[in-house]
Amino acid sequence: MDPYIIISSDTHAGLPTQDYREYLESKFHRQFDEFLSERDAQLEAITAMGIRNEKFAKEWFEAHEVELRGGWEAPQRDKELDGDGVAGEIIFPDADAVESRTCVPFGAGLGMSGDLNPVLGLAGSRAHNRWLAELCSNSPERRCGVALVPITAPLDDVLAEITRSKESGLGAVMIPAMWVNQAPYHDKKYDPVWALCEELSMPVVTHSGPSSKHEYGDHLGIFVSEVVWWPARPMWFMLWSGVFERFPGLRFGVTEAGCWWIPNYLWFWDRLYLGQKGAEKLSGFPHLSMMPSEYFDRNCFIGASNTKRRELGMRYEIGVRNILWGNDFPHPEGTWPQTREWLKKTFHDIPIDETREMLGLSAGEIYGFDLNKLKLIADRVGPTPEDLGQCIGDPQGKDLAKKWEPFKKVGRHWLTDNEFPLFGSLGD
Amino acid sequence: MDPYIIISSDTHAGLPTQDYREYLESKFHRQFDEFLSERDAQLEAITAMGIRNEKFAKEWFEAHEVELRGGWEAPQRDKELDGDGVAGEIIFPDADAVESRTCVPFGAGLGMSGDLNPVLGLAGSRAHNRWLAELCSNSPERRCGVALVPITAPLDDVLAEITRSKESGLGAVMIPAMWVNQAPYHDKKYDPVWALCEELSMPVVTHSGPSSKHEYGDHLGIFVSEVVWWPARPMWFMLWSGVFERFPGLRFGVTEAGCWWIPNYLWFWDRLYLGQKGAEKLSGFPHLSMMPSEYFDRNCFIGASNTKRRELGMRYEIGVRNILWGNDFPHPEGTWPQTREWLKKTFHDIPIDETREMLGLSAGEIYGFDLNKLKLIADRVGPTPEDLGQCIGDPQGKDLAKKWEPFKKVGRHWLTDNEFPLFGSLGD
Repeated sequence: MDPYIIISSDTHAGLPTQDYREYLESKFHRQFDEFLSERDAQLEAITAMGIRNEKFAKEWFEAHEVELRGGWEAPQRDKELDGDGVAGEIIFPDADAVESRTCVPFGAGLGMSGDLNPVLGLAGSRAHNRWLAELCSNSPERRCGVALVPITAPLDDVLAEITRSKESGLGAVMIPAMWVNQAPYHDKKYDPVWALCEELSMPVVTHSGPSSKHEYGDHLGIFVSEVVWWPARPMWFMLWSGVFERFPGLRFGVTEAGCWWIPNYLWFWDRLYLGQKGAEKLSGFPHLSMMPSEYFDRNCFIGASNTKRRELGMRYEIGVRNILWGNDFPHPEGTWPQTREWLKKTFHDIPIDETREMLGLSAGEIYGFDLNKLKLIADRVGPTPEDLGQCIGDPQGKDLAKKWEPFKKVGRHWLTDNEFPLFGSLGD
Repeated sequence: MDPYIIISSDTHAGLPTQDYREYLESKFHRQFDEFLSERDAQLEAITAMGIRNEKFAKEWFEAHEVELRGGWEAPQRDKELDGDGVAGEIIFPDADAVESRTCVPFGAGLGMSGDLNPVLGLAGSRAHNRWLAELCSNSPERRCGVALVPITAPLDDVLAEITRSKESGLGAVMIPAMWVNQAPYHDKKYDPVWALCEELSMPVVTHSGPSSKHEYGDHLGIFVSEVVWWPARPMWFMLWSGVFERFPGLRFGVTEAGCWWIPNYLWFWDRLYLGQKGAEKLSGFPHLSMMPSEYFDRNCFIGASNTKRRELGMRYEIGVRNILWGNDFPHPEGTWPQTREWLKKTFHDIPIDETREMLGLSAGEIYGFDLNKLKLIADRVGPTPEDLGQCIGDPQGKDLAKKWEPFKKVGRHWLTDNEFPLFGSLGD
């Protein structure tokens, strides 16, 4: 059987911060020096909250000194991807998630929020985007770079940067997960942004990172409890305010925020839309022509990173095609450099055609990869269904499809006349 | 078989707003007049968002004119509870959830938030609490009144009002779900509040209602998507900051915010605590001696109101004893006045002992009801397992227990060595 064409929907790349200088317009160099001098205080803050474990950090950097250069050097990067069996990648900023040594200038990285200084935020974003386009020009067939675009900044600048990014070879747009003190994403002032991204076929994405940290004290558990909610939030602001109704070709994805929360929301939303018990006293939704789960299937997707078995058990409610696996390279919370083992552990009893979707085909369609070109890489590095243990005593992997048949049939139970979800197996 | 002793963990009572005047200290009468005059604007706002459907409102008040007086008159109230088969009740404010005609002065009702004027907020709360104690003095054996306590107000006043409420016969404390611009609930400044509630055996509760409305425009779907998250949020602030470690006897409940979100959080939290893949780079939790799910079982509960079949399918992950059913009387989104039908529809295949827990026994323990006294009422009004259709061809209801055995055995799969949850039935 053919090897899997694996696309990691969640990788990270970034220059050691000081090296962004040459990609930054010179008029910002003075502020850049100030920014560099303030980084120690930020490291102390994340250490206090427990997001950085000093002992782990030390060991991590010592053990992976060479490999971590793949965070910004293309040849090393390709070597690491090959090692993981990964053919293609969607590239987010902040290669270093342990000590933020590769953070984007002026806070315009994963933590980018609406309270960013709009001028500096755009300047830092442009610097990263310029560098990222260079990185992607090495082995472009296997890379989709995500442009940083703080869309709460002045509109003309935002639109210009999206267009410039596309022309430079980048393929998607990351927006701040949190608008903070700026207009929420239901506001029609953002329509030109959605229109342009739709026109240019650039998926709009958020990534976990931003959260309401100032409320958490130094309580790591609170941070982790909420860190998946904030990047997901734009989805229901856009969905219920009709963004996906007005821009049917727009794609919106939430990255590295799990997908375990999706089934309950779809259930809740569809029933609300359909007038469930309890909704009688409310007005309806005349501006939406489809059910929320239909918009979700057409417009949304999840960059699910290291999918958990529990999440895979929910895949017929989430929608198999809406789940995009990722290795989170080179972050320690991801599966790199043990991706092959993790895939086997996680996917060993998942039907092969579904595995193909989640590991790469969906990402290929959404982010516009040329799968014929990727196949050449996959043929060289990709694991096969046999490698994932999916064919034991069953060369065609047909038993797996049979095992999951009842679950697939129930699917989204609220739409198939079933009362309960049907997650998981009966322990056979 | 004995009838069910049903305790509704979520009912509402409140005076027609103008009638709160005599319960309000006279020095606040001037501000009360201003408050009354501003209510039209608020009604317009909720209508614009679609929370109020004008046509529905008109029909609702016309069709239930007499019954809705049970929102504040004890004899009519008992009649409605009897009709629903409900023996006991936990009473929250705001009887009228359609047009807020019974809202508590100065915003101190379900929508109570940390940005409330602390002086007026406490004054309004005291007015409601005084009146509620009077209501509860009628048939006290079947009522547990929830005192409104804006704990973000000055501490001495807060503690005094909790003590006064307890002495007046109220049995629980509702706190603002949102602290807004005040200290978050991980702050140790609240420890005296938790200590007093623990000492007085008064459960601390939130109730859905508060949300970040100023961000929603007039988009009802956004509001409904988030309205369960905000009241749940204090739970993880308290849990991870060690409130339940320091106050092992404190009980904390989230009311009318569903319970479908619990399983995923417990799964996520326990794995974080236990050092799941991805947590290696983080610090641990040395200040917590138990797993999050253990604190949840000991300290937390869910006033789940009108439980859905999907939620009941998750009950072995949530914990059967942690789910407290409620009819939400007299709100139209609740099951009143069709509770008997709804119970049959929802619980027909749920084991009888579990149904007893969820419909009343857990609430009885947590809120301190005298079940012997309640039994006298239940014997008169309570539906039996036969009435709920739980004994068809199976007089002792044993088949039901057998049906769910494998699900019960898997329970919280991450703690029982199972990979997947096991929700729902195989469609038999």
